[in-house]
Amino acid sequence: MPNGAQALIRTLASCGVTTCFTNPGTSEMHFVAALDSVPEMRAVLGLFEGVATGAADGYGRMADRPAATLLHLGPGLGNGLANLHNARRAKVPLVNIVGDHATDHVQYDAPLQSDIESVAGNVSGWVRTSQRTADLPHDAVEAVVAAKGPPGQVATLILPADVSWTEGAEPVLPPVAAVASQPDLSAAVEAIARALRNGGRTAILLGGRALREPGLLAAARISAATGAKLLAETFPTRMERGAGLPDVERIAYVPELASVQLSGLKHLVLVDAKAPVSFFAYPGKKSYLVPDGCDVHDLAPPAADVVGALDALADALGANGAIPGLAAATRPAPPTGSLTADKVAEAVGAILPEDAIVSDEAVTSGTMLPANTAGAPRHDWLTLTGGAIGQGLPAAVGAAVACPDRPVIALEADGSSMYTIQSLWTMAREQLDVTVVIYNNRSYGILNVELARVGAQQGGPKAAAQLDLSGPDLDFVSIGNGLGVPSQRVDSGEDLVGALQRAIADPGPHLIEVVIPVAFSQRQLRAMPHAMRALEVLPRPIAQAVKRRLYP
Amino acid sequence: MPNGAQALIRTLASCGVTTCFTNPGTSEMHFVAALDSVPEMRAVLGLFEGVATGAADGYGRMADRPAATLLHLGPGLGNGLANLHNARRAKVPLVNIVGDHATDHVQYDAPLQSDIESVAGNVSGWVRTSQRTADLPHDAVEAVVAAKGPPGQVATLILPADVSWTEGAEPVLPPVAAVASQPDLSAAVEAIARALRNGGRTAILLGGRALREPGLLAAARISAATGAKLLAETFPTRMERGAGLPDVERIAYVPELASVQLSGLKHLVLVDAKAPVSFFAYPGKKSYLVPDGCDVHDLAPPAADVVGALDALADALGANGAIPGLAAATRPAPPTGSLTADKVAEAVGAILPEDAIVSDEAVTSGTMLPANTAGAPRHDWLTLTGGAIGQGLPAAVGAAVACPDRPVIALEADGSSMYTIQSLWTMAREQLDVTVVIYNNRSYGILNVELARVGAQQGGPKAAAQLDLSGPDLDFVSIGNGLGVPSQRVDSGEDLVGALQRAIADPGPHLIEVVIPVAFSQRQLRAMPHAMRALEVLPRPIAQAVKRRLYP
Repeated sequence: MPNGAQALIRTLASCGVTTCFTNPGTSEMHFVAALDSVPEMRAVLGLFEGVATGAADGYGRMADRPAATLLHLGPGLGNGLANLHNARRAKVPLVNIVGDHATDHVQYDAPLQSDIESVAGNVSGWVRTSQRTADLPHDAVEAVVAAKGPPGQVATLILPADVSWTEGAEPVLPPVAAVASQPDLSAAVEAIARALRNGGRTAILLGGRALREPGLLAAARISAATGAKLLAETFPTRMERGAGLPDVERIAYVPELASVQLSGLKHLVLVDAKAPVSFFAYPGKKSYLVPDGCDVHDLAPPAADVVGALDALADALGANGAIPGLAAATRPAPPTGSLTADKVAEAVGAILPEDAIVSDEAVTSGTMLPANTAGAPRHDWLTLTGGAIGQGLPAAVGAAVACPDRPVIALEADGSSMYTIQSLWTMAREQLDVTVVIYNNRSYGILNVELARVGAQQGGPKAAAQLDLSGPDLDFVSIGNGLGVPSQRVDSGEDLVGALQRAIADPGPHLIEVVIPVAFSQRQLRAMPHAMRALEVLPRPIAQAVKRRLYP
Repeated sequence: MPNGAQALIRTLASCGVTTCFTNPGTSEMHFVAALDSVPEMRAVLGLFEGVATGAADGYGRMADRPAATLLHLGPGLGNGLANLHNARRAKVPLVNIVGDHATDHVQYDAPLQSDIESVAGNVSGWVRTSQRTADLPHDAVEAVVAAKGPPGQVATLILPADVSWTEGAEPVLPPVAAVASQPDLSAAVEAIARALRNGGRTAILLGGRALREPGLLAAARISAATGAKLLAETFPTRMERGAGLPDVERIAYVPELASVQLSGLKHLVLVDAKAPVSFFAYPGKKSYLVPDGCDVHDLAPPAADVVGALDALADALGANGAIPGLAAATRPAPPTGSLTADKVAEAVGAILPEDAIVSDEAVTSGTMLPANTAGAPRHDWLTLTGGAIGQGLPAAVGAAVACPDRPVIALEADGSSMYTIQSLWTMAREQLDVTVVIYNNRSYGILNVELARVGAQQGGPKAAAQLDLSGPDLDFVSIGNGLGVPSQRVDSGEDLVGALQRAIADPGPHLIEVVIPVAFSQRQLRAMPHAMRALEVLPRPIAQAVKRRLYP
């Protein structure tokens, strides 16, 4: 009779969980030893737990089914926590397996003992410590069902070593998927249809599962029929984009700009999205960004059939025959000369291949990316859902494992990259087709903006040093090569375009470092009035449009 | 009137907390801006929170007073959690400052919102979310007092952004240190003295603060007078060692060997130490390692004056005049020829400079280090107290900041180094005198042992791949140079000795990579009987002595 670990892995595979992102220790050795007994299970090692959890997040976004992790006790969970936080915010299905001491060992408070459940609860919609080998496969099925949702969530299964090593478990098959009873949305649909027909300025805010093609097209038809503006949440889990799809503007990160996007609205319709609030609070500023007097309507609660709700709304509005506005096929001209963040965006737009997956953690350097890629061939865009930086490279790992036939482009800020730089090694080991672009502006660029924004302007050299990543300069070519990824630095637009094309054409991972000026120095920011500072973090065409409205 | 952040930093400095290891974000920008208002406060930036928390741990071990951290919300705390776990186990004083959203912002569940207190509780003896600017300086004083103990502990102060930015705080001075009322230990001392006089085989297990010179000398006098054996806990926080100090054998990590060290004992006296238990549980093995029939005596509870208790015991035994056994000044011969882990230990013993601080996270490769350094000049030895790997490099950062005039040697396994490799950048930025030796055996060596030990022998290539760090090989010279630390690889004993001497003599950090064979391959381990496998992870002279006793 198989032991717990063998039955667990067999059960996971039967439930469609066939990839496990691992960083095991001693308490997980029986799980490790059991891997070879289940040929369908792929195990992908990371050198740090944040790589494993972020990869499971990226995998879940692209595969639409959970990957598992394998983490070592409380500290391993701690190391993986930031990317589990992002996965929670992304509503991604993820089975988070955390090894624990054998049940009899807990009483001795050995050095690695800690309270795993309390930490896991912070990021998980479902937590269970499996107590008996015979129950373990059933616990695993429940974990998978909980992870899948809808909405997707992190389900943490804590696995004591003895539950894993004891014999006497039977793998179980997943339950026949019950058709989840759908909430009746007809009243909400009718009320929203009325508002859209009769009301004043209206916007439809799309998030989560509404940002895939079916939801986007339904929403675009509604927009065409009613004049409602389409918006997307600031940091989508996965947004389908490119020529032939609606080009939906995302709510700005900077609250002053989001307020401009939302100003004058009488109705805001939420579709798998939350009413917009500012990412951070600022002295004297409102956190809730919906304008006074605007009615907020929730089309679909988290567990609802989002696309069905949009289709029903389109039906109610007679919008099914409307012609949705779609992005035309267009690319920026390849940039030339010395590089800036904006030119990198032009290069990405100029070369983005068909069916690419973009993992975007470019932060301040990435503000021009959406404008430059809206007309590129069809692609998916993954973003930093929970704001816990260090997500972009691991997500690229997971996306590449989930979609081995698609090119993955990771656009990564220097500061953010360093939280989970170990991801590069896994890309090399698994020979994943990932092209990593590191924007090296030798600064926590966004903190330059934020330090100015919070009104904290009395800082001196010690404060400035906290935002400065020079001294020593990070050499990403050396780091990347040291982690097994062929790496190069480029100085010009021409070289960047060529390097990107070669990297995408060659199998396996590649890293391209672009050294660019910081978008806004502290000195520049201090010289600007406050609202102008806020504008400067937006793409220039948008900023200019906003400036025309703010300062006519 | 100063704002909260300014008053907080001023108060911390007044309490003797003059170093802050940081990785801030937006919610911490007022703290950052306030740094320059308090000249006594040094801020040391890390590129990852595990560097900051591990550095604060290393600093606390060497300075005997807390450093502060500055972390960004729940995910930042998560990234720092593993090394806070190690600090908790080390009973190190540490003021852990975690920024949070402004109090009014919490209700909006913005993307970075999470339950910080529940995660902090896992590693902290004291947790408080400061609620009002006027209270913040008082909260800070309480945090420092709580952190200092005794015993030292992690005190987490959660700092909402508005509490930080609001004006109206007055810095406060620390309270006049109350003389902590000491528990009356006379009964325990008398009982233990009786046992030592009359009983059978006895050992004194020293941990925590008993492993500094005064405690070691008192214990060694007791040992000389009574014949009691001295032992040290497996992973000491800070152990003073070298010629002229008692050379105390540490309890082995491998439980079978610890059992040999403890076998036949009738009395075990604990001094700031816990009764030994195995680090992990193993199928069919006992976790509690004290032999049946052995009485365990606790000389001093955690808050007690440990050295005073040892002195009182020596008094009661009339041992004050006894001549303690001290290590003679002796060094191994410098090694020659191709390198092994044991030869690296000989090289370290041959060159270890006076007054060095050794941060030891060499794991399996480090088993011969204690034997080769016992007669070296006086030094401090820091170890992985909580078993959460990724502690050695950050601890070296903190030790070097705390003791700028002392050479720091970080002995680091390849696998462990990769959890917090970002530490190298901080060493370079701060130009710390740290010599990093990376033992690159291209394997999670200890997991080779553990996979065999747990009896999990059915593994195939997928299992083996989970322990294997080759494919691609990590190139630490390239990684180290990329992070700003001059790095080189050496192949022979002669070159290693020369490289170590030059690295120690030159200011600033240096990295030396030694590529060595893995101590025990899976194939070798499978071919050994179980007990022999356990022995093979011990230093050879000890293993041979044990073998003679186990297999006479």
